[in-house]
Amino acid sequence: MKYIIVGAVAGGASTAARLRRLDENAEIVIFEKGAYISYANCGLPYYIGDIIQDRNKLFVQTAANFNKRFNVDVRIMTEVININPSKKTITARNQQTGEIFDEGYDKLVLAPGAEPVRPPLPGIGLEGIFTLRNVTDTDFIKSYVQKYASGKAVVIGAGFIGLEMAENLQHSGLNVSIIEMGKQVLAPIDFPLAALVQQHIRSKGVDLRLNTSVNGFKKEDSGIKVLLSNGEELYTNIVILSIGVKPDTKLAANAGLKLGPAKGILVNEYLQTSDPDIYAVGDAIEFLNPITGLSSNTYLAGPANKQGRICANNLVMGNVQQYNGSINTAIVKVFDMTVATAGVPVKQLKNNNIEYIASTTHSGSHAGYFPGATQMSIQLAFAPKSGRLLSAQVAGYNGVDKRMDILASVIQRGGSIYELTELEHAYAPPFSSAKDPVNIAGFVAENILQEQMNVVYWDEFKEKATDAFILDVRTHKEFEAGSIEGATNIPLDELRSRLEELPKGKAIYIYCQVGLRGYLAYRILKQKGFVDIYNLSGGYKLWNACAAEHQINAPKIKAFV
Amino acid sequence: MKYIIVGAVAGGASTAARLRRLDENAEIVIFEKGAYISYANCGLPYYIGDIIQDRNKLFVQTAANFNKRFNVDVRIMTEVININPSKKTITARNQQTGEIFDEGYDKLVLAPGAEPVRPPLPGIGLEGIFTLRNVTDTDFIKSYVQKYASGKAVVIGAGFIGLEMAENLQHSGLNVSIIEMGKQVLAPIDFPLAALVQQHIRSKGVDLRLNTSVNGFKKEDSGIKVLLSNGEELYTNIVILSIGVKPDTKLAANAGLKLGPAKGILVNEYLQTSDPDIYAVGDAIEFLNPITGLSSNTYLAGPANKQGRICANNLVMGNVQQYNGSINTAIVKVFDMTVATAGVPVKQLKNNNIEYIASTTHSGSHAGYFPGATQMSIQLAFAPKSGRLLSAQVAGYNGVDKRMDILASVIQRGGSIYELTELEHAYAPPFSSAKDPVNIAGFVAENILQEQMNVVYWDEFKEKATDAFILDVRTHKEFEAGSIEGATNIPLDELRSRLEELPKGKAIYIYCQVGLRGYLAYRILKQKGFVDIYNLSGGYKLWNACAAEHQINAPKIKAFV
Repeated sequence: MKYIIVGAVAGGASTAARLRRLDENAEIVIFEKGAYISYANCGLPYYIGDIIQDRNKLFVQTAANFNKRFNVDVRIMTEVININPSKKTITARNQQTGEIFDEGYDKLVLAPGAEPVRPPLPGIGLEGIFTLRNVTDTDFIKSYVQKYASGKAVVIGAGFIGLEMAENLQHSGLNVSIIEMGKQVLAPIDFPLAALVQQHIRSKGVDLRLNTSVNGFKKEDSGIKVLLSNGEELYTNIVILSIGVKPDTKLAANAGLKLGPAKGILVNEYLQTSDPDIYAVGDAIEFLNPITGLSSNTYLAGPANKQGRICANNLVMGNVQQYNGSINTAIVKVFDMTVATAGVPVKQLKNNNIEYIASTTHSGSHAGYFPGATQMSIQLAFAPKSGRLLSAQVAGYNGVDKRMDILASVIQRGGSIYELTELEHAYAPPFSSAKDPVNIAGFVAENILQEQMNVVYWDEFKEKATDAFILDVRTHKEFEAGSIEGATNIPLDELRSRLEELPKGKAIYIYCQVGLRGYLAYRILKQKGFVDIYNLSGGYKLWNACAAEHQINAPKIKAFV
Repeated sequence: MKYIIVGAVAGGASTAARLRRLDENAEIVIFEKGAYISYANCGLPYYIGDIIQDRNKLFVQTAANFNKRFNVDVRIMTEVININPSKKTITARNQQTGEIFDEGYDKLVLAPGAEPVRPPLPGIGLEGIFTLRNVTDTDFIKSYVQKYASGKAVVIGAGFIGLEMAENLQHSGLNVSIIEMGKQVLAPIDFPLAALVQQHIRSKGVDLRLNTSVNGFKKEDSGIKVLLSNGEELYTNIVILSIGVKPDTKLAANAGLKLGPAKGILVNEYLQTSDPDIYAVGDAIEFLNPITGLSSNTYLAGPANKQGRICANNLVMGNVQQYNGSINTAIVKVFDMTVATAGVPVKQLKNNNIEYIASTTHSGSHAGYFPGATQMSIQLAFAPKSGRLLSAQVAGYNGVDKRMDILASVIQRGGSIYELTELEHAYAPPFSSAKDPVNIAGFVAENILQEQMNVVYWDEFKEKATDAFILDVRTHKEFEAGSIEGATNIPLDELRSRLEELPKGKAIYIYCQVGLRGYLAYRILKQKGFVDIYNLSGGYKLWNACAAEHQINAPKIKAFV
């Protein structure tokens, strides 16, 4: 059996290694158009930022070592330029010699990845404007960064890579601006948690500009002028374009393989394309999202690696293992913060008319009495009847990755928020609290589902509470440091004795700092005969971040508060 | 409705708070024989070690604040000395005034906790010999530690608390010995991972003595002589007794409530005792272990808190929520290491004749190319047919808690190792690798179950491999630095070309450093016609730690290697 694999980074290299473990006698050839295989794609920004100092560390495997270990014929600098499905051959070009040749296969695996979007803006071809896809790009960027070590950098696009690049460029000594067309950073994250991240980015001295696009670039002395949509011009030495990626489907499309609605290579549950002898894995494919049922792309290393393993199993043993799709679990370090997401963000649930309830809680990363605890925010979205967990997002400083992994595992299995209340986590003071943040998030969701509490979200609070009584149950000191306009302050511990100050027959909107005291106040009022009451989800902390960011982002729109 | 709760730490305080949220009009009285309520039990060793410097941080709630917030009548320094179930009253003694009084209840909740075992050894009553249960004990120990700040400490019992105390006493400047009767530290952890911890404890300069018990104590100048079973006498200034705890069941037993085979208060799935008006939660109860089905104790804060919530729900709404039992998820920081466990340890599976397969893997805490990655070891035990995960143990430096929580959630739901292979974790270089250590552990377990690999454990290797060919597939350099006696070194990358050096018709026992190269070698040999082959689970790393610790522990027994 002869296998040809196109692409030797995450999905391709995983497929090759597993193929060899399953079939010692197969012939395996892997073509890679770049100079390197199986490199640390996700580490590239950190090499540019000198966090990873040894360039050799970027290479998980070299072509020579991969060949020695797995007896795989690795052909780097060799681009597959055509597939001939009827003849079961590929045509390739050796980039060094220029030689063009055909090579036959029994089974072909496509793992071409995704390529950065590079819009046709005026001046896009100027020196100093980069996209980041591979080690070669990285080397160019790094030498440029070293040349302009105390200069200016503009990052266009505030997605995961954009923010990682911004942090690393600043770490290299550059003065960084981030230009983002959208109204928030990190499009897959919902606005409230993105607002917390934006505040953090600004606190680090980065010039973050939202609702701003780029019209073009002009050469200027030793640098570049970035022409912004608002008429401003931004002088810089280096530009990183990180506005997104798209599946690299040229080969597949030319070969007549079916593409899907998300413009990726369409595969079935066995990762088989429309040609039964051709499989595909990684960023280039699209697959059904297990929650929405919609065909969508996933640009993540974890799924690519797992697909490689499944693909090899199916190639050798004949479609024995189904791929179940990705829930798009992703995480990013943004300076001292970490933000993560899994499942379908609230904004997409809305767009897809999927019913949901959302809830945001804030908890300590570990026991408050043990040094080093920091606060994290967890947003859950769950189905109103079953409580099925549809998405989770976490933002904080320590322990965000842990909570995300647990939440992702529940989402992935179609589990509900009730599971979160029962999770028996490993508790000792350095690691968690007796009730883990995930338990707390589950308890609050359960309270909402079991109608122990009605919640109101930050973006509807102002409108809904217009003619209502707004009750701030924080301490006097907290209230004085900042509150929602029109609120009356009755600290929780005084509430039982001051119930007569509350209006009967009027809606009451309660809030505290993070949501817990608001809930306790809610329970008191509910049982004391008040009917129309609501607690602000995520409390003043979240409301304040959202309101502040909302104002900064849209200064020309009517002020939010 | 009037509720009386006995005990105001984890389970009792949780029950009271939840009761109030559910029923604003109930009368709730909570009796606590100690001076403090709802304190940070798990933080006490760290306050002694000055890691937690502010004593006030130990108090999650004070009696006065708890009363203000939850309108609960908190009676500290008041010991309940009798329950009269037929009259539905309790008898209590005010420890300050000596007053004895009766108080009636509609429903009673027992949360008396567990008490440290204090064996009747000669001299056990000497000054300077302590057990650690509450804040009062802590204050005594701390002042003693300050008095003998550069002196000697002996910790008797190398369980979770014992090791935490050893670390904190050393941190306070004392010279620490640990005396443990058993052949390993941390009885709930299986020997291989405990061996790694033991090596770490020794590397920190702690005098760790296993297989050693204490015959008694003698007063000596300003200190104590600890008389050891091996005839040695150990001079010390302070002794911490941490040989275990037992459920505090005096009250329950005197009231005629049923106790169980594990000597805890017996409760049904609603946490109700044999008297339907009396419920019980926390360390004092026993419950069916969801994996073994055997009634057993759990001394953990997490389950106690969750039981409190469930108990309150059942009290107010009438047995609406079942408690599903604890899988004994526990974690402990031991100097720079972290060790965690969930489910039924291998040794208990053996004792209970539950069929299992075990597998140990070692992986990096995050991507190896990103700074700060450390290695962790994961031991899984799973059912031979279904692959159901029966237990997991993790030892390492960073990220142990994260992997434990994920593994615990799978064990808790009765999930299998196949789930581990699919888990879509949050990956970016600072947090994990494209294949998380949990995925890797799952892959290896899957390989074993699907008969892609036979494994052999460290403790059977020597015996089984006696007449076999032992193949070390590590590099020459690794081999020279230490190997298993009788092994032949053929590095993996040379194996394909040196197959003729292997004997046909003889069993082959393969090992590498952690297990991965051994597996790759196994796959090559299997497909090249070798039949009787095995790979050493956990590799030389685990074997070496186990063999070394085995020798240190049992110097009088025939040498292991």
